[in-house]
Amino acid sequence: MTMARIRRTDGTDGVLPGRFDPADTDKWRTALTCIEPNKILVRGYPLDEIMGRLTFGETIYLLLMGEVPSPSIGSLMEAILVSFIDHGATPPSTLAARNTATTGAPLRACVAAGVLGFGRFHGGDIESCMQFLDAGLELVRGGVTYKDAAFTLLQKYFDSEEPIPGFGHRFHTRDPRAARLFQIALELEVEGGHIQMIRAVELTINELPDGRHLPVNIDGAIAAVCGDIGIPPAVANALFIISRVPGITAQALEERNRERPMRQIDPKDHLYDGAGQRRVPDKRR
Amino acid sequence: MTMARIRRTDGTDGVLPGRFDPADTDKWRTALTCIEPNKILVRGYPLDEIMGRLTFGETIYLLLMGEVPSPSIGSLMEAILVSFIDHGATPPSTLAARNTATTGAPLRACVAAGVLGFGRFHGGDIESCMQFLDAGLELVRGGVTYKDAAFTLLQKYFDSEEPIPGFGHRFHTRDPRAARLFQIALELEVEGGHIQMIRAVELTINELPDGRHLPVNIDGAIAAVCGDIGIPPAVANALFIISRVPGITAQALEERNRERPMRQIDPKDHLYDGAGQRRVPDKRR
Amino acid sequence: MTMARIRRTDGTDGVLPGRFDPADTDKWRTALTCIEPNKILVRGYPLDEIMGRLTFGETIYLLLMGEVPSPSIGSLMEAILVSFIDHGATPPSTLAARNTATTGAPLRACVAAGVLGFGRFHGGDIESCMQFLDAGLELVRGGVTYKDAAFTLLQKYFDSEEPIPGFGHRFHTRDPRAARLFQIALELEVEGGHIQMIRAVELTINELPDGRHLPVNIDGAIAAVCGDIGIPPAVANALFIISRVPGITAQALEERNRERPMRQIDPKDHLYDGAGQRRVPDKRR
Amino acid sequence: MTMARIRRTDGTDGVLPGRFDPADTDKWRTALTCIEPNKILVRGYPLDEIMGRLTFGETIYLLLMGEVPSPSIGSLMEAILVSFIDHGATPPSTLAARNTATTGAPLRACVAAGVLGFGRFHGGDIESCMQFLDAGLELVRGGVTYKDAAFTLLQKYFDSEEPIPGFGHRFHTRDPRAARLFQIALELEVEGGHIQMIRAVELTINELPDGRHLPVNIDGAIAAVCGDIGIPPAVANALFIISRVPGITAQALEERNRERPMRQIDPKDHLYDGAGQRRVPDKRR
Repeated sequence: MTMARIRRTDGTDGVLPGRFDPADTDKWRTALTCIEPNKILVRGYPLDEIMGRLTFGETIYLLLMGEVPSPSIGSLMEAILVSFIDHGATPPSTLAARNTATTGAPLRACVAAGVLGFGRFHGGDIESCMQFLDAGLELVRGGVTYKDAAFTLLQKYFDSEEPIPGFGHRFHTRDPRAARLFQIALELEVEGGHIQMIRAVELTINELPDGRHLPVNIDGAIAAVCGDIGIPPAVANALFIISRVPGITAQALEERNRERPMRQIDPKDHLYDGAGQRRVPDKRR
Repeated sequence: MTMARIRRTDGTDGVLPGRFDPADTDKWRTALTCIEPNKILVRGYPLDEIMGRLTFGETIYLLLMGEVPSPSIGSLMEAILVSFIDHGATPPSTLAARNTATTGAPLRACVAAGVLGFGRFHGGDIESCMQFLDAGLELVRGGVTYKDAAFTLLQKYFDSEEPIPGFGHRFHTRDPRAARLFQIALELEVEGGHIQMIRAVELTINELPDGRHLPVNIDGAIAAVCGDIGIPPAVANALFIISRVPGITAQALEERNRERPMRQIDPKDHLYDGAGQRRVPDKRR
Repeated sequence: MTMARIRRTDGTDGVLPGRFDPADTDKWRTALTCIEPNKILVRGYPLDEIMGRLTFGETIYLLLMGEVPSPSIGSLMEAILVSFIDHGATPPSTLAARNTATTGAPLRACVAAGVLGFGRFHGGDIESCMQFLDAGLELVRGGVTYKDAAFTLLQKYFDSEEPIPGFGHRFHTRDPRAARLFQIALELEVEGGHIQMIRAVELTINELPDGRHLPVNIDGAIAAVCGDIGIPPAVANALFIISRVPGITAQALEERNRERPMRQIDPKDHLYDGAGQRRVPDKRR
Repeated sequence: MTMARIRRTDGTDGVLPGRFDPADTDKWRTALTCIEPNKILVRGYPLDEIMGRLTFGETIYLLLMGEVPSPSIGSLMEAILVSFIDHGATPPSTLAARNTATTGAPLRACVAAGVLGFGRFHGGDIESCMQFLDAGLELVRGGVTYKDAAFTLLQKYFDSEEPIPGFGHRFHTRDPRAARLFQIALELEVEGGHIQMIRAVELTINELPDGRHLPVNIDGAIAAVCGDIGIPPAVANALFIISRVPGITAQALEERNRERPMRQIDPKDHLYDGAGQRRVPDKRR
């Protein structure tokens, strides 16, 4: 019996102070961006060459995943990032940003407050949905049909208060973003097992005698698509944060521009007075 | 003489408690995103129609400015957003994010800590450079040449400790991102007075007998380009925050994945061990 | 004419990369807390000796000001820190914390979001009020009476939208905390010029023909008291942040314990259901 | 089989939009602070009466726990809050705050960045240590001796990489704050089962043949003391955040006052140049 493997409670390991720790004399390493005088390489590519050649969405993929995405995966990245960009004035993260803005705080403080509100119940669903789908796919690999795997996955939610990861929405009975993301994945031919699995789960829920429809939400759709294109859960979670920052920023700017300082913000008590519904121009490139 | 216009120190106006304030009974308004059951309109466009038709960069422009950008301005947006995406492991904002990551904090806390580090001396230069250039353009509109306006603008910096907004860089003697952004603006034919003005200032600095070159930095280039395409300073500032979030996110993820918890992060003591220099594939769309 | 004094826009000075900068080889310094193995000295005092001998409030003063406070100033510190500890559920900083809590974010994220809401219009008044009072005291030192100095100070606010720093409150027509803080300062015999000055301003406002009472608020009272006991504006501002953190923490904890996740928080739509009014026990030590 | 209990993934329950939800029409409630015009009641006590009668530490207890602490528990609160107030310039949370300060960000942004660094490995130990001790106390209540309970608790850490909650420190082989906190608890006669339990664990570790001493750290001491005076884990965790905020604030202020902007902060490369070691004056009240 030895205590040699005991690690300190702060996560560092148990070398006593004063002892020589060779790890400390080594340089630490980064593989993201190389900075030299007058040169910036992002994952090996000169940043000034990336400018004008890759879109922001493609460069985000490059930075997070290490390689330039294929055209299909690049298009899917844009769609994923766009899908989450804003959801109006009522999400708690947006309200945290607006409540910060009304105190006269600088824009970056408002954005930070908003980002902190991507908590367990808000955006945190992508990672748990990926695990949920992976559990189903393991059953499928073991010889079970998607349908049966879905029924098995749902089993433990029948008499539980637990939400089904990736299903249901506060406002929407059918999430238009999820449907569109699946359609784009189909068109780009990147659909794989995760999308099949989540569809099997949705079908199974909707066939239950209870008769209630519980739609795939955008978290679920992103989880399934990310699973199929090989984006790991931690990166999928990062995409969620990145995609919503523009929305939070726009909401904080609007709060500063349109409202009086130190107001009491009732989320339910607002009206939309922006542009009426219009058609998106055709793709230009 | 009356005190009627005295406003309370919290910025609200001086109506005493208990008095009827009609403004409070009105609903407050937002023009960004309209949420109805199963429908999300961003600036009037159904979000599911935007997906697959506009890029993330174009949708950011739409959200912040209210309209879909022209193809040229859309391309410029992508270049601006890409130009700032990351600058290695040493910016203080990145170090704030890495120091937060090493404590085991969740990703969103690391991102928020990083965003808070976009302080006065870091990214705050875009807005002051836009004002600097606007002051020069007013002289030009009054009949002065760009060259003379530049010399007048620089006057007050000759014997001052003040930095010239948009010029100079900690690492680079020539900022490759700035040069590339000007080139793209030229190719897209969106170059205007702000770019001319900042170039006149650069030329004037470099002709000074002191012989030292002080290059336009990326803050200055973004300020000039945003000025020429009609993006107001507050929105240009927002673009800076949005563009660097992916970099901060990637750095925090790398800290979590590669380093031991609770380490002491010396910014100078690191090595780049990522991909070697390589060429960006040609534009694919 | 030389450019030698030009500083880079990031605030560092203009030594070109590659040049030797002796400042970089020096160690940086801190005068706050000395850490050696098994020893922690806060401003020179062993932390384990401080424990049990100084209160938290006295130790805060020690840490920020460098010396153990006198008993009178220690008591005043406690009163200042207590005065700001909470102001119910409606301040925007508190709402930012509650909106973050409702997303399931960890407690520290809620506290950070709340702290970010101490913006220009909320708590930022202490520093500007100290400058306002200092301007008046300079007039007094020049031979003017407090009354006349007050009238001169108020001059520029008569026809302006600007709030008078340290006066007026959203809810209260008489701020009970301000009155009590002045009383304690009087009892402890630490009253000085700043308190005299703010009282002269209050009197002058209340004698105006307009007939409206605009009370000193707690920001103003803290500004005056801090001025009289030699606490500089930046430290007074720090005291505000420190004093409100327990309130924000308690509000975030209550949100997590009592409310359902992802709720829409209307600040006006709440009731107090806690302990009824009761008397504070006599001082016990 | 029914889906009636399925909850939405955002944590709200599954009532479809458009249905009447009586909970929404009710007012929400708070038991912390009652605000009426010219009256502020904290847990029922007028805030202006608390001022001058309770210390900041006692008022923090009142706010979090609902009642004025007994004199003994009040003294212990002060000691707990003091014990954590600062730990020099090298904790990652402090470095996050200093890295934010060097960018020119406002004080509140620096404090928020610091608070975000109270992550899993830094301060997060209090809660897990309380659970660890509670597990031991349950064995004791079942008839086992403290010694045997300690040995059972330690069992699973012998061949594991897991740190023992509340034990070990990066710098100290004996944590002076922990020893002092136990001494104060003893003097105030509030020592109970949790302190006995943690001492039994410490003794057991130190008697192991390996011969290495792994001391109780301050997280462990606070966990044990809070357990014995009935403070629940979530509130103990809140105390940690509250107690370190003054330290982070002081460090950020010092960074702004003493150092040049945008510097590269190497945590290892600093010197203490403050007051030499001195004796704390005797208790003054």
